[in-house]
Amino acid sequence: MRVVDLIRRKRDAGELTRQEIEFLVAGYTANEIPDYQMAAWLMAVVLKGMTRAELAALTEAMLYSGKVLDFTDLRPKHPHSLEAIPGLVDKHSTGGVGDKTSLIIAPIVAAGGLVVPMISGRGLGHSGGTLDKLESIPGFRVNLTHEEFRYVLSFCGCALIGQTAEIAPADKKIYALRDVTGTVESPYLICASIMSKKLAEGIEALVLDVKTGSGAFMKKEEDAVYLAELMVETGRQMGKKVVALITDMDQPLGRKAGNALEVEESIEVLAGGGPEDLRELCLELAAWMFHLGERVAGLADGRKLAAEMIASGRARDKFREIVTLQGGDPAVVDDPGRLPRARHTADVLSPAKGYVGGVQCEQLGIACVVLGGGREKKEDTIDPAVGLVFHKRVGEAVREGERLCTIHYNSEERLKQAQQLIEQSYRIEPSPPQVSRPLVHRVIGE
Amino acid sequence: MRVVDLIRRKRDAGELTRQEIEFLVAGYTANEIPDYQMAAWLMAVVLKGMTRAELAALTEAMLYSGKVLDFTDLRPKHPHSLEAIPGLVDKHSTGGVGDKTSLIIAPIVAAGGLVVPMISGRGLGHSGGTLDKLESIPGFRVNLTHEEFRYVLSFCGCALIGQTAEIAPADKKIYALRDVTGTVESPYLICASIMSKKLAEGIEALVLDVKTGSGAFMKKEEDAVYLAELMVETGRQMGKKVVALITDMDQPLGRKAGNALEVEESIEVLAGGGPEDLRELCLELAAWMFHLGERVAGLADGRKLAAEMIASGRARDKFREIVTLQGGDPAVVDDPGRLPRARHTADVLSPAKGYVGGVQCEQLGIACVVLGGGREKKEDTIDPAVGLVFHKRVGEAVREGERLCTIHYNSEERLKQAQQLIEQSYRIEPSPPQVSRPLVHRVIGE
Repeated sequence: MRVVDLIRRKRDAGELTRQEIEFLVAGYTANEIPDYQMAAWLMAVVLKGMTRAELAALTEAMLYSGKVLDFTDLRPKHPHSLEAIPGLVDKHSTGGVGDKTSLIIAPIVAAGGLVVPMISGRGLGHSGGTLDKLESIPGFRVNLTHEEFRYVLSFCGCALIGQTAEIAPADKKIYALRDVTGTVESPYLICASIMSKKLAEGIEALVLDVKTGSGAFMKKEEDAVYLAELMVETGRQMGKKVVALITDMDQPLGRKAGNALEVEESIEVLAGGGPEDLRELCLELAAWMFHLGERVAGLADGRKLAAEMIASGRARDKFREIVTLQGGDPAVVDDPGRLPRARHTADVLSPAKGYVGGVQCEQLGIACVVLGGGREKKEDTIDPAVGLVFHKRVGEAVREGERLCTIHYNSEERLKQAQQLIEQSYRIEPSPPQVSRPLVHRVIGE
Repeated sequence: MRVVDLIRRKRDAGELTRQEIEFLVAGYTANEIPDYQMAAWLMAVVLKGMTRAELAALTEAMLYSGKVLDFTDLRPKHPHSLEAIPGLVDKHSTGGVGDKTSLIIAPIVAAGGLVVPMISGRGLGHSGGTLDKLESIPGFRVNLTHEEFRYVLSFCGCALIGQTAEIAPADKKIYALRDVTGTVESPYLICASIMSKKLAEGIEALVLDVKTGSGAFMKKEEDAVYLAELMVETGRQMGKKVVALITDMDQPLGRKAGNALEVEESIEVLAGGGPEDLRELCLELAAWMFHLGERVAGLADGRKLAAEMIASGRARDKFREIVTLQGGDPAVVDDPGRLPRARHTADVLSPAKGYVGGVQCEQLGIACVVLGGGREKKEDTIDPAVGLVFHKRVGEAVREGERLCTIHYNSEERLKQAQQLIEQSYRIEPSPPQVSRPLVHRVIGE
């Protein structure tokens, strides 16, 4: 088998066999196939696509390039029947601006009796990352060993960690190469990357939150739907229960973006408050997890259970427990003032009276990165305190000179750039927008 | 300027500026841009193509990555008017089976008073290479320095050498990468590679022999024509006179394939004999060189002059001179028996009475490689003695058991593989083929 022949076949839109894909992935992971051959093959995949059989083979090859965790001994039991249920569940979001649902959902679902072994990522580009947000909690450790991960899981039903070296090493290596070779944007490669990591968690069910809109990686709904279909199909082929919600990212989720600010807002929701849209989406995603994990008989019961976990304070207690077990300061949960705070704030005001007609959501995410809240390159360090607070959502009325957004910043120079980006992002119009986008556009695999 | 952005732009079928292409080529040649980024960009070019402006920029960037030779002081004068003529000329063929025209044309054209600074390549794949053929002449040196090249040229008007380290180093590096990343087959990359090397020779006119048919790299005539048009346009943009002949490679050229065997057949043609098709094509290509180099008033005069150079023995004298000056044994020209000879021969016989309906020409080339006459990998060494002698051309009648081909070989094991390939290559039919393909299909840029 010659690598160059496999590259040529894909270049000419041909199909590779399972064995050929395993050979590529194993050879690359073992440093036997050089970066330049993998880069050429990846570009051919981006431009020529893959069959479903190739995608399944790629996902599995990446999954089995490392350790696949086994938590079957931690499977939860139904609280009434006491029978074991497929309750090892997780959620994955394709990312956006202000998307902090993991921090809220994981404690809700664990409080509801399921087990959530969540392996998350860091922010890259305009999108934030769960690990960065958690690390704004003083002392919080995301780099647990597998033994520690299992310990926290068995103790409180949930743990939130980063990808270890043993989990899908092929994905780690391939992702780093894709990042510098313009081969990120392929639904097949995105699907294989996400699913190989998520399936390595040893879960039984997975709820996918695939974002679409100006702040999402998939700007067009059809692209989001296509990716969602690929992921649902790939997960099901491997015996998992999977659904995907296509959700809106045409404006930031919630009112806050930036690491510590998002932890603060997550705590607000867990305490029964917080912005409507964020709270709604969290309840919906948690409901699906309860449903797929067979904790409840249907989606409506799932929504009820999720709301109960918040109302009773049990979800907040669970979050406090997780923070404690992962080395963080639990007092933060009751006093978010202990989180890092930026030294300065500045307001962006509306230039006119009218309505917010729309925002360029990705630009708002980039403004966060510019402030120091995200990474332009992987090596960049993050300022946990900076970020944005949004006062007006799309469709809301605004007076001239009224605050649209407050910038939390630590550097005057960065402030200027961010201000400019934010001012350009808001579209103020004389009348309210005609069409309002729903929070959940569609469910794939219902 | 970030390389990844340039890769992404090409991936999305966008256009790069001249500066961006110069940045890529210069950075890669200087080892500042890694192989994997170049590989991804090359694959995007293969699949998305280039504009004419991009192609011109790429060709020039590769050309000026190294030394551009200057032989203007060696420009010939017209024998009657004694005025300087644009007589620094060369020919390039895209390669095929039995294509030894360079060995015949270069001495013809130099004997006719023009200057031919010919930089050639080695065989790769099923196609032979001029350098390998010349090296079957005992003592012949193809690796001349630039000083030696100039010396031989000034002395006898022609020299045949290999690409030096100073000539188009970007092409050398990019070609090596293309070879292992499945990015060879792009008319744009092929054009830039050929033209950057040829224009570095400091020539004023170039005749291109673009092969088409089952033994050519461009199997389809439309692909050959497209490449020819690109090369003619690129060369003319850089102020050179260029035409391209689309010529037939649906069967081997001449009766012999293999390094020493092809030198032998070239000497036959220079001596006034040799097979009709080979002789005809050489006269046609030489006529175009005389015409473009303004040695003659028109193509008909060019044909006459070329034929005279053979009839008078002056072309053969010139070849003897070249061999001598480049360190080879000149006695070979009068006694080809001094060339390396394979120890054994074996015949492939016709299985039936009928006509040769067609041959799989590439397979015949691969049979030569299998015998040891070519390279599967760049590192392979070549056996100059082995090869094939073809007794029947397409359309010729054949009796059952009559010889189709004689194999010259040195290894029994290799013989078996070659035999099988050759037997499969010949199609014997009860009646002669209806269509006969002309030797020259078209002339591009006439």
